[in-house]
Amino acid sequence: MIVMSAGPTTVSREKLDYMMKNSTNTDIDKNYITIHRETEALISKLVNTNAKSFVMLGEAILGLEAACSSLIEEGDRVLVIHNGFFGYGFKYFIEMYGGIPVMLEMDYTKGLNKDILDEYLKKDSDFKFATLVHCETPSGIMNPIDEICSLLQDYGVLSIVDAVSSIGGEFIDFDKFKIDVLIGGSQKCLSVPSGLTLITISETAESIVLNRKTPIKSYYCNFKNHLEKSGSREFPYTMNDSLIYGLNISLKNILDTDYVSIHKEFGERVRNAFIKSGLKLYPKSHFSNTVTTVLLPDNITDVEIVDRMVQKGVFISPGVGHLEGKTIRIGHMGDNLDENMIIETLKALDEVFLEKNIVLECSLTESFMKYNVFF
Amino acid sequence: MIVMSAGPTTVSREKLDYMMKNSTNTDIDKNYITIHRETEALISKLVNTNAKSFVMLGEAILGLEAACSSLIEEGDRVLVIHNGFFGYGFKYFIEMYGGIPVMLEMDYTKGLNKDILDEYLKKDSDFKFATLVHCETPSGIMNPIDEICSLLQDYGVLSIVDAVSSIGGEFIDFDKFKIDVLIGGSQKCLSVPSGLTLITISETAESIVLNRKTPIKSYYCNFKNHLEKSGSREFPYTMNDSLIYGLNISLKNILDTDYVSIHKEFGERVRNAFIKSGLKLYPKSHFSNTVTTVLLPDNITDVEIVDRMVQKGVFISPGVGHLEGKTIRIGHMGDNLDENMIIETLKALDEVFLEKNIVLECSLTESFMKYNVFF
Amino acid sequence: MIVMSAGPTTVSREKLDYMMKNSTNTDIDKNYITIHRETEALISKLVNTNAKSFVMLGEAILGLEAACSSLIEEGDRVLVIHNGFFGYGFKYFIEMYGGIPVMLEMDYTKGLNKDILDEYLKKDSDFKFATLVHCETPSGIMNPIDEICSLLQDYGVLSIVDAVSSIGGEFIDFDKFKIDVLIGGSQKCLSVPSGLTLITISETAESIVLNRKTPIKSYYCNFKNHLEKSGSREFPYTMNDSLIYGLNISLKNILDTDYVSIHKEFGERVRNAFIKSGLKLYPKSHFSNTVTTVLLPDNITDVEIVDRMVQKGVFISPGVGHLEGKTIRIGHMGDNLDENMIIETLKALDEVFLEKNIVLECSLTESFMKYNVFF
Amino acid sequence: MIVMSAGPTTVSREKLDYMMKNSTNTDIDKNYITIHRETEALISKLVNTNAKSFVMLGEAILGLEAACSSLIEEGDRVLVIHNGFFGYGFKYFIEMYGGIPVMLEMDYTKGLNKDILDEYLKKDSDFKFATLVHCETPSGIMNPIDEICSLLQDYGVLSIVDAVSSIGGEFIDFDKFKIDVLIGGSQKCLSVPSGLTLITISETAESIVLNRKTPIKSYYCNFKNHLEKSGSREFPYTMNDSLIYGLNISLKNILDTDYVSIHKEFGERVRNAFIKSGLKLYPKSHFSNTVTTVLLPDNITDVEIVDRMVQKGVFISPGVGHLEGKTIRIGHMGDNLDENMIIETLKALDEVFLEKNIVLECSLTESFMKYNVFF
Repeated sequence: MIVMSAGPTTVSREKLDYMMKNSTNTDIDKNYITIHRETEALISKLVNTNAKSFVMLGEAILGLEAACSSLIEEGDRVLVIHNGFFGYGFKYFIEMYGGIPVMLEMDYTKGLNKDILDEYLKKDSDFKFATLVHCETPSGIMNPIDEICSLLQDYGVLSIVDAVSSIGGEFIDFDKFKIDVLIGGSQKCLSVPSGLTLITISETAESIVLNRKTPIKSYYCNFKNHLEKSGSREFPYTMNDSLIYGLNISLKNILDTDYVSIHKEFGERVRNAFIKSGLKLYPKSHFSNTVTTVLLPDNITDVEIVDRMVQKGVFISPGVGHLEGKTIRIGHMGDNLDENMIIETLKALDEVFLEKNIVLECSLTESFMKYNVFF
Repeated sequence: MIVMSAGPTTVSREKLDYMMKNSTNTDIDKNYITIHRETEALISKLVNTNAKSFVMLGEAILGLEAACSSLIEEGDRVLVIHNGFFGYGFKYFIEMYGGIPVMLEMDYTKGLNKDILDEYLKKDSDFKFATLVHCETPSGIMNPIDEICSLLQDYGVLSIVDAVSSIGGEFIDFDKFKIDVLIGGSQKCLSVPSGLTLITISETAESIVLNRKTPIKSYYCNFKNHLEKSGSREFPYTMNDSLIYGLNISLKNILDTDYVSIHKEFGERVRNAFIKSGLKLYPKSHFSNTVTTVLLPDNITDVEIVDRMVQKGVFISPGVGHLEGKTIRIGHMGDNLDENMIIETLKALDEVFLEKNIVLECSLTESFMKYNVFF
Repeated sequence: MIVMSAGPTTVSREKLDYMMKNSTNTDIDKNYITIHRETEALISKLVNTNAKSFVMLGEAILGLEAACSSLIEEGDRVLVIHNGFFGYGFKYFIEMYGGIPVMLEMDYTKGLNKDILDEYLKKDSDFKFATLVHCETPSGIMNPIDEICSLLQDYGVLSIVDAVSSIGGEFIDFDKFKIDVLIGGSQKCLSVPSGLTLITISETAESIVLNRKTPIKSYYCNFKNHLEKSGSREFPYTMNDSLIYGLNISLKNILDTDYVSIHKEFGERVRNAFIKSGLKLYPKSHFSNTVTTVLLPDNITDVEIVDRMVQKGVFISPGVGHLEGKTIRIGHMGDNLDENMIIETLKALDEVFLEKNIVLECSLTESFMKYNVFF
Repeated sequence: MIVMSAGPTTVSREKLDYMMKNSTNTDIDKNYITIHRETEALISKLVNTNAKSFVMLGEAILGLEAACSSLIEEGDRVLVIHNGFFGYGFKYFIEMYGGIPVMLEMDYTKGLNKDILDEYLKKDSDFKFATLVHCETPSGIMNPIDEICSLLQDYGVLSIVDAVSSIGGEFIDFDKFKIDVLIGGSQKCLSVPSGLTLITISETAESIVLNRKTPIKSYYCNFKNHLEKSGSREFPYTMNDSLIYGLNISLKNILDTDYVSIHKEFGERVRNAFIKSGLKLYPKSHFSNTVTTVLLPDNITDVEIVDRMVQKGVFISPGVGHLEGKTIRIGHMGDNLDENMIIETLKALDEVFLEKNIVLECSLTESFMKYNVFF
C-alpha cells in the first residue's frame, strides 16, 4: 500500500529496520539514555534554538493537552486564536484545566491575520498565553506563526503553537518567531509511527511551569515531570526504545537535507496539479506545503473516493470537522515525498474521478509531471 | 544484554520481527482495525471475562491516572488500600481529579488482609470506589485481589486494580474476583515494548463513566473516548500498529500456554535460590511469582550491584521508594522466563557478591538448578 | 486490471500488503506456528463446527484428490453424484486410487435432487462414501448440500463435498449438514492467492483415515500426515507464511461480516442484470450466489468476449467443459464484491456486446444499478 | 530475525517487494503467462540445457513423489542409491506407485562412490531408473552426480536426481551429467518462499511419461499434465503469481552472478571456522557448499542450541533422521550468503557454546573472518 495520507505518513522500510533492535531496559541502559537525550537536542536543533526539548510517550494530542494542563492555573484567561478545527479545539483543553478560553475567530479559508490580532490586542491583551496552530491539517493552511507569535510577545502574551504537522516540513525558528511552547508529533513530517509527542519550551514558559502556585492536575499530561528530569538519567515513566531510535535517525536525516525547499517544491507541484485540473483547493491563501485539501464536487463524498483509492492501493485522508464529506487530503510530507508514490497516487485519483464521471480539465498526473519541466 | 529487570522485560527477537510490518494507515486500514479489535477481545479472554477491554497509547501509568480521572467527580470519597509504593500512589491521582483519598495502610511486608479491611468497612464504607494493586513490583508482593475485591463488592464499593505487573503472569478472573476496572501494561508479563495501557471495565463502572454529571477533566486520560468508539472502526487518536501487532501475538502465545503454572514454577525456583543463599527476601508472605525483591546486606547498595551487573551484560532492577538503595529486583515474567537467561543472571550475581566480599551460604545458580531436580 | 473472474478472485491491496512480512522459518518460528494453528481453527469456525481443519500447500484440486486417496482402499465403491463438470471429475480420482466409481447423473441445469437420490439409495446404498460439489463453478449452480448430505448419512454413506467456490460465500454448517469431508480453496471467496487447500474433516472420516488396512498411496495427497501432526508444532513439509497470513486475516474479516447476505445480494443483482438484458442464464434453478454463468448467442464465442474484455481492463472467465465456447462467467465473490468493480465490468460488457452487434434489451449496468434502488 | 537455516532460506526484502504486485488472473493474463514460460526457460538455462522445465505448485517433496508416480508402472524395478535420509526416502514413493525399490546403500559419511555402483551394475542393471540425491541436506554431503548419472546411462538406466538444495548453488550441467529428471525447490538456494517444485526432464524420460501403458495414478503428482500443456497458454490448475514472480527474478539474479564460486567460497569459510574450532563436521568427504552439518559434543542436544539461537535472533536447523539430536546445520545458500549475517550467526553460536560450557579451540567468528584474509 502507498501511504499518502495527512498522517500517519509512510515510514520507510529502512527506518523500520533501523528501529527494530534488540529490546533493552530504557531505564538502565546508558546507551539508550544517550540516544534519548541526543534526540531531544536534535529537536531543538531542528527548530533552531538552544531551548529545552523533551519527548512524551503518547499520540501528539497528548502534547496539546499537556501544554494547557502545565501552564494553566484556575481562572487564567487564554486567547484561542483559531481559523480551523485544531485551533478551535484548544478551547476544550483550556476549560478542562480551569482556564477561561477567549475565542478569537478568523477567516477559516485563509492564514491568521496579524492586523486583526493587533487590533484585538490593543483592546484586550490580559492573557496568560495564546494558542494557535501552525499547519491546520484539515484545511491545508499554513499560518504565519512568525508574525503572530512576535506580536503576541510585544503584548506580553506567551504563545503555544501546535506544529504537529509542520515540524520537519516547514521552517521554524523557535527563538526568532518568539514561540514559548512548540508541540510536534512523530507521525507527520517526521515519518515515525504514532506514539511520540515532541515539546520545545522557552525559559519563560519553563519558569511558569516550575513555579506554579498549585500543582499540575495530571501526571501523564504534565511538563514538569519531564523538565525536572531533563538531562538526567531518569524518565517519568518507562520509555519506548524503538520509537526513540526511529525519531533519532529521522531527525538526523532531515537535518542533512534542505527539507524546507523539498516540501515547498512538492507542495507547489501537487497544488498545481489540482488547480490545473479545475478542482478547487479549500484555502484561498496560505497554502500548506505539507498537506493539500481539495474541495469535492457536490455529487461525490470523501468516503467514496477514499474507499476506492484503498482498492487501488493508496491511502489518502478524508475530510475532518466541518470539511467532513466535502474534501479529500493528500499529505505531501516526510517519507511520503517520493515522486513515484505521488505519481501513483495521482494516477489512481485520475482513474477514480473518471470512474465517478467527474470530468477534469486535465490529468492530475500529467500536470504534476509537466510542472517539473518548467521548475 | 540479558534483560531480567522488573520491567520492561525482554521482548523476544521473533516478536520484534513479527511486529515489524510495512507501515500502514491505522485509521483506514481494515486489516489493522480487525487486528486491533481482536486484540481487545484477547485481553478480555486473558482475564476470563466478556467485559469490554480497550487499549490506550501510553505507558501503563496512563491507565492508572485515566481510571481516576474517568470515575471521580468532585468530592467523591475513594478508599486507597495500600501496602506498597504503587498502592500509595493512587492518592495523588485521586487528589488531582477532585476526589478525597481515604488512606487505609496495611503491613508493607505482607499481602493485603481481608479481615482488616472488613473491620474497616464495617465502620465506614461510603466510598465510590477503592484502589489497590495486584502485584507491588517494588516489594515483590502479590495481593489476594480475589478476596479484597469480593469483599469490596459486598459493601457496594467498586474496585480499581493495578494489574500492570501481574496480567499475563498471574491468574485473574475479572468476573469472579468482582473487579470493576483492571489496568494492565504492555512491558511486564506481556513482554511487548512500553507504550500500551490495557483496560478492562465492568458494566457498572462503564455506566458510571458514561453517565457522569460533569465532563471528564482530560482528553488523553479518558475512558469515555475509548468506550464510545468501542467495536467501531474509529479510534480517539492515531494508533501505533507495531505495538498492537506485538500485543496481539503475545496474547495468543500466552493463551496457548499454562502461563500461570510456568510463572509459579520459576517464581518458586528463584525465591528458593535466594533463600538458600542466606539472603533475605523483602516480603514476609504473599510472594509474587513475577518479581522477587531481595534485601541487601548493609554494606552494599542496589546501584553498586545493578551497575556491576550491567558490566556483566545483565539488566536487573534497583529498589524503588522506601526500598531504594536497599533492595535489588529480578523480574521473572514474560519473555524473561528462560532457564538460560535466569542461570546467566544468577551466575553474574554470584560473581558480583563474591567480588563485593559478600559471602553466600551457597551459589544462587546451583540452588536454582538443583531445585529443578526435586520439582 | 479488474479481476472479476470465477477464480482466482481479486486480492485486495491491503491484504497483499498484510501478507508481506519479512520471511521467516516456518518450521521453527513460534509466532508463525501460533498463527497457522489459529488459521485452522478459523476455518472450522467459518463452517460452524468444532471438527478439525487443516491446510495443505497446493491448489484446491490437491484437496479433491487427497480426499479420495486418503479414504479409498482397493475395491471401495463410491457414489459420484454429479450435475456438472467438477462433480463428474471425482470419477477420475476414485479410479486412480483403486475405488469403483458408481455414477449417479442428475439434470445438469438444476441443483441436485434429493428425491432422485432417495429413490436411488433405496435400491443401492452400499457405498463407502459419496462425492458431490457445493457450487459448480462452470454452470453457476449451488447444490443443496444440506439435504443431500443428511440423506446420505441416513443411509450410512459418508459425504465428501467440494466447496472450493462456496466456502466463505455461502452458508455452511458442517455438523448440521452432516458433512464428512469439506474441501475449500484459497483463491475463490476467500480471495487469497492460489496455493492453499482447506480441509475440514469429521471424526468418522478421520477415524477411517487413521485406521486404514493399507497405507495411503501418496505422501503429498495424504490427510494422515496432516492429521497426525494436528495441533503440534510440526508440519509434514515446509509451509508458506505469506499465504497463511493472508488466509488468516481473510477469515477474520469474513467472520466479522454478514458475508452470506452480502453474496446473496450481489448474486441477485448480477443475475437480474443479465435476465433483464434478455440474455439467458445457464441454470434453470439453484443459482449460485458466487458465480453467474451466462449463455451466449450462437454467433459469438466466449473467447472473443473474454479477450475483448481483457483489452478493456477486465478479467472474466470463459466456459469450461461442455459449456466451453458457449458461456461466460462472472465471479461475484470475495474481494470481487465491490460495487464499483462490478459496474466497471458490466459497463465493459455492455460495450463489448454493442461492438459485436448483439443487441441487449437494456443496459446491464443500468439494470444492475436500478435493482439496488428497489432492494 | 536472521534466517540461516538449511531451508527455508532468507528471502530478501527487495525480492519480497518485487513479488507483491497487484493480484492477477493467472489463467488469462497474457503477461503472467509470458513470465511463467520465461521462468521455465530460465530453469533450463540454470542447468545448462535445452530440455524442458516446468513448475508445480507445492512444496519440493511434491516433485520427488511426482517423478516416481509419473515414471513408474506396476512392477518396475528401481535402483535406490542412498547415502542419506532423502536418498533412502525415495523407497516409499516407489512402493506407493507399485514399483520395486532395490536398495543400494553406500557409506553415509561420504559422497556416492562410482566404483561401488559400477561393480553393482555389472551384476544387475535391470532397472527402469535409479534415484539419487545431489545435496543431502541432513548430512551436508554433495554427491558427485556427474559421475553417477553418466555411469547409469552407460548401463541404460535413467536417473532421477533430487537437487532441491543444490540447484542455484552448485554447478549442474543437465546434459553433460546425463540426468533424466532433475527436481528443484524454491525455498533453498533460490531463496523464494516454499511452494514451488521445479522439474527439468530429458526427452527420453518425457517419452516414457507420455507413452505409458497405464495412466498415472495421480492428478496432482503428475508430470504428464504439465508436459502436455508445455509452452501453451494453459496450466493444469490455477497458478500462484507472486511465487512465480519471485522465482523469475531470483533466477535472473543468480544467472547474472558467478553463483557457483560464491557458494564455494562461503562454504569453505564456514567449514573452516568449525574445523578450526575443534568441532567435527559430520561428513568425512564431499562437503556440500550449501549446507554444513556439525556434530555436537555428547552433553548437548541440537534443540538446546537451536532454541537458544532463536533467542539471539538467528534461525539455524536441528538434525534430521539418524542425525536428530546430534547435529546442527547452517544453510549457506541463496540470500543467506551475506557476510554480515553469517558473522552474526557465528557470533551467536560462539556465545551459546560459551554459555553451555563447551570450550572451542578458537572463536568461530574469528576463524571465519581470518580465512578471508588468506583467500
